[in-house]
Amino acid sequence: MSRPKNVLWIMCDQLRYDYLGCTGHPTLKTPNIDAMAKRGVRFSNAYVQSPICGPSRMSFYTGRYMRSHGSHWNGWPLRVGEPTLGDHLKKIGVRNVLVGKTHMTPDLEGLKMLGIAPDSIIGVHVAECGFEPYERDDGLHPTGRPRPKYDAYLRERGYEAPNPWEHWANSGADDDGSLQNGWLLVHADKAARVAEEDSETPYMTRRAMDFITEAEANGRPWCMHLSYIKPHWPYIAPEPYASMYGPGDVLPAVRSEQEKQSAHPVFAAYMDMRYSRNMSRDEAREKVIPTYMGLIKQIDDQMGVLMDFLETRGLLDTTMIVFTSDHGDYLGDHWMGEKDLFHDASAKIPLIVIDPSTAADATRGTVCDALIEAIDLAPTFIDYFGGKPPDHILEGRSLMPLLHGGRPADWRKVVFSEYDYCMQDVRLKLNQPIEQCRLFMVFDGRWKYIHASGFRPMLYDLLEDPQELVDRGEDSSCADVMARLQSALFEWALHPKGHITTSTEKIAAYAEKQLQVRNGILIGIWDEAELSAIRKKIGVPPA
Amino acid sequence: MSRPKNVLWIMCDQLRYDYLGCTGHPTLKTPNIDAMAKRGVRFSNAYVQSPICGPSRMSFYTGRYMRSHGSHWNGWPLRVGEPTLGDHLKKIGVRNVLVGKTHMTPDLEGLKMLGIAPDSIIGVHVAECGFEPYERDDGLHPTGRPRPKYDAYLRERGYEAPNPWEHWANSGADDDGSLQNGWLLVHADKAARVAEEDSETPYMTRRAMDFITEAEANGRPWCMHLSYIKPHWPYIAPEPYASMYGPGDVLPAVRSEQEKQSAHPVFAAYMDMRYSRNMSRDEAREKVIPTYMGLIKQIDDQMGVLMDFLETRGLLDTTMIVFTSDHGDYLGDHWMGEKDLFHDASAKIPLIVIDPSTAADATRGTVCDALIEAIDLAPTFIDYFGGKPPDHILEGRSLMPLLHGGRPADWRKVVFSEYDYCMQDVRLKLNQPIEQCRLFMVFDGRWKYIHASGFRPMLYDLLEDPQELVDRGEDSSCADVMARLQSALFEWALHPKGHITTSTEKIAAYAEKQLQVRNGILIGIWDEAELSAIRKKIGVPPA
Repeated sequence: MSRPKNVLWIMCDQLRYDYLGCTGHPTLKTPNIDAMAKRGVRFSNAYVQSPICGPSRMSFYTGRYMRSHGSHWNGWPLRVGEPTLGDHLKKIGVRNVLVGKTHMTPDLEGLKMLGIAPDSIIGVHVAECGFEPYERDDGLHPTGRPRPKYDAYLRERGYEAPNPWEHWANSGADDDGSLQNGWLLVHADKAARVAEEDSETPYMTRRAMDFITEAEANGRPWCMHLSYIKPHWPYIAPEPYASMYGPGDVLPAVRSEQEKQSAHPVFAAYMDMRYSRNMSRDEAREKVIPTYMGLIKQIDDQMGVLMDFLETRGLLDTTMIVFTSDHGDYLGDHWMGEKDLFHDASAKIPLIVIDPSTAADATRGTVCDALIEAIDLAPTFIDYFGGKPPDHILEGRSLMPLLHGGRPADWRKVVFSEYDYCMQDVRLKLNQPIEQCRLFMVFDGRWKYIHASGFRPMLYDLLEDPQELVDRGEDSSCADVMARLQSALFEWALHPKGHITTSTEKIAAYAEKQLQVRNGILIGIWDEAELSAIRKKIGVPPA
Repeated sequence: MSRPKNVLWIMCDQLRYDYLGCTGHPTLKTPNIDAMAKRGVRFSNAYVQSPICGPSRMSFYTGRYMRSHGSHWNGWPLRVGEPTLGDHLKKIGVRNVLVGKTHMTPDLEGLKMLGIAPDSIIGVHVAECGFEPYERDDGLHPTGRPRPKYDAYLRERGYEAPNPWEHWANSGADDDGSLQNGWLLVHADKAARVAEEDSETPYMTRRAMDFITEAEANGRPWCMHLSYIKPHWPYIAPEPYASMYGPGDVLPAVRSEQEKQSAHPVFAAYMDMRYSRNMSRDEAREKVIPTYMGLIKQIDDQMGVLMDFLETRGLLDTTMIVFTSDHGDYLGDHWMGEKDLFHDASAKIPLIVIDPSTAADATRGTVCDALIEAIDLAPTFIDYFGGKPPDHILEGRSLMPLLHGGRPADWRKVVFSEYDYCMQDVRLKLNQPIEQCRLFMVFDGRWKYIHASGFRPMLYDLLEDPQELVDRGEDSSCADVMARLQSALFEWALHPKGHITTSTEKIAAYAEKQLQVRNGILIGIWDEAELSAIRKKIGVPPA
């Protein structure tokens, strides 16, 4: 009997596309991830649907744009009834399992309206965004919030504290042993107080391996989302990763004075955010970036552990493996911290996909520059398991043709990404109405056009200006380019996949098979002769 | 104790805006409806969100545009979890009751995924579009489909047949007594075989009165949707209405040869539909229109019965009364039958609203030409009952300010309407992809702009050309107008109310109250001093 197919979908949080060996970082070496790229396809033009955790993830988990799934911000519940990858996989008998972070918040009001207890089987499925939560851990656990299992693990290992996650795994210690708050950038150069093996990344890797071991007895195919919190802040790493990189590894900030002087109002407001002002300082970059690199290096090492484990268990031949991230991190580039806007540092992600089937042998180790959206993964997984991605719901496209060396002639010509800053100080600074805090990116592989509701657009030419330092949004010589990309945005905005209850097959059959007349609804037919002729034509016996 | 407020929301099906006495029909007299207009406000620029039953009604019932509720065609289920007027009224203790038609189809797949039995209390609420179905009757009952209560009523009254609805209420008889199929236009001049008092309109009026009588004991406020199938086809009326009007009452068709010769491809495809070809013939118009008028006259008489009933029961002082329709009927104008496109004959509706409160005394008997959308009714009702319309969900606006004589300065400048012809032969004729069968109307009170995906736009100037006979869509002198309305459509398309789980109040509070920091999520803060300063500023005690 052949073993079931599985998908292992690894996601890092806030990992920039260019902070890997295989994507060109000069001093950060990631041999294990690079080896994964050699076994699969690395996509060099992959973009998230929103450069911030929650909305980006809801797009990954639903296969739909933010404008369609409606969860515009971290912690905004995904509406009850919004179909998820888990719903689609359930129909074809595949478990959709979570180990780590989703950033999902249950739609308690929606559940209540429908009389669904959040702790019932279906309630959990809905509240967990279609995942079976083997271990859910959203990665940020300030005191006063519900505690993760990881806290109990730390206590078992002897790390006593009111908040072990914060006080051991995400705090440093001063020379005198006093606790240093890991949330603060000034302490990013301290080592976490926890032993490496007890820090979050290896803990979560082990939990994934626990699941895989247990799943074997169950026998059903699974899609496991192994979702690490790192290298997301708190920027603090355990030894030896804390000391592995230093200021000498910090690349010069990608930025220019001109960016500041002629900044678009929305860009200017973001540059003025606390985190941007802080991350624009060399002192902060020199503390944060080496730690960020150390956290990535730790992930790379864990990838080695995980791949060895899969090989030992004989799962490499049946398991599709995906390595990606939910968005990037400016790290001080463009005078910015965090993510939020659409420069490649923020909106572009690393994406490696290993399809173990022989049909993918020809593409192993290649780089594909097709325009990819995060929403392509859900249909890819359904496709891999042999299901038919429901194309009236999913707005992404299966990557299988690309993995097998093809490039469909009608492959997308532009990618879209969105952002809603209504929850941020930027709204107040710009005095924008809540409904008008919207940004939309359209990128065609060269030109990146950004529509900002209520403001002029921004435009970058990544061919002439790959570092995205010159905003051409007011350059009249670019009017044609802007009109073309605006028109693409218009088309996109007018045609969301909103009619999720009616399949394309059903729609196609209706007119083609004259189902209205067949169902007895006779509209505007003149007389008996005309009715008979119609019935004869479509093969319905006379009444 | 004061009596509870109620709303009586009367809807006709396929009633054109201009087939009433008060809206200017020269020979059709509707004294009872006209009297309602004298007691309230008549809106002379009210448009539906889609000129076809199902999608139009789902917009009425959700207060949301078609692009938002996603039910693009008759019989397309409204997705589970899509909030309805009934959901909003439930929260403020108001019963939302149905007598008649909704065209709702339950989302059985969505219900199943959530483990909700369609016949449970919540299942029925969802499956009935948020209505408590006192009597549901979608009005079209061909043989072989589930039977309405009305069938049983007819049988009780002695109308025996395999399909009493069709064979008695919607068929005529020839001189020799043989049955004449009422679905066929050629028989529209026959009288229905049923006595007037047993025909659908008075039956449904009585059912509404039954509910009102029963509701008094219950004591809770109610919003009752009394939703007649007529004057929708089958075009057949009982006597005396069948003979009340004749060919002399048929107005000349509003159409021109030029319309046909230079028709936009989508318009041309609709002109070529069977029902359009048939209704373009004088013979059909002379059979159908007098009957259509008779059916309206019967509704008018029933309005007299109903208003007398309300007066007798002392309900006129507490009941908001609305009279409207779900779309119009071309009746051969513009070489068209049915509805589908956006000429006023199709997309414009009669709308009368009577607010019994003294605040509305000044506007009684007036005509308001503000631009109104069907989605305005849901927030109006919530507002009338004293609730706060949830503005992160509802895309319409309460009409209360207009009913009280005001005109908010920021009242909408354009109305939108949509159409999706993917289920129709028109898609096959035009060979359009299923996702691209979209039409969008933007009307600013003078110019009506229609975006047709994949084709050039259409444009009508209702000031210079009130009959909408000249399509200016290719007239270069209108380029500015078209750019302006296209831009309005673009803005509209980019800003749907999609984030239905998060209220505006919650969004507003988040940045204003610095809830992120309050919740312990410390992003990009440099050191202890900066953290203390922030905490001090927002009034949070030091950790």
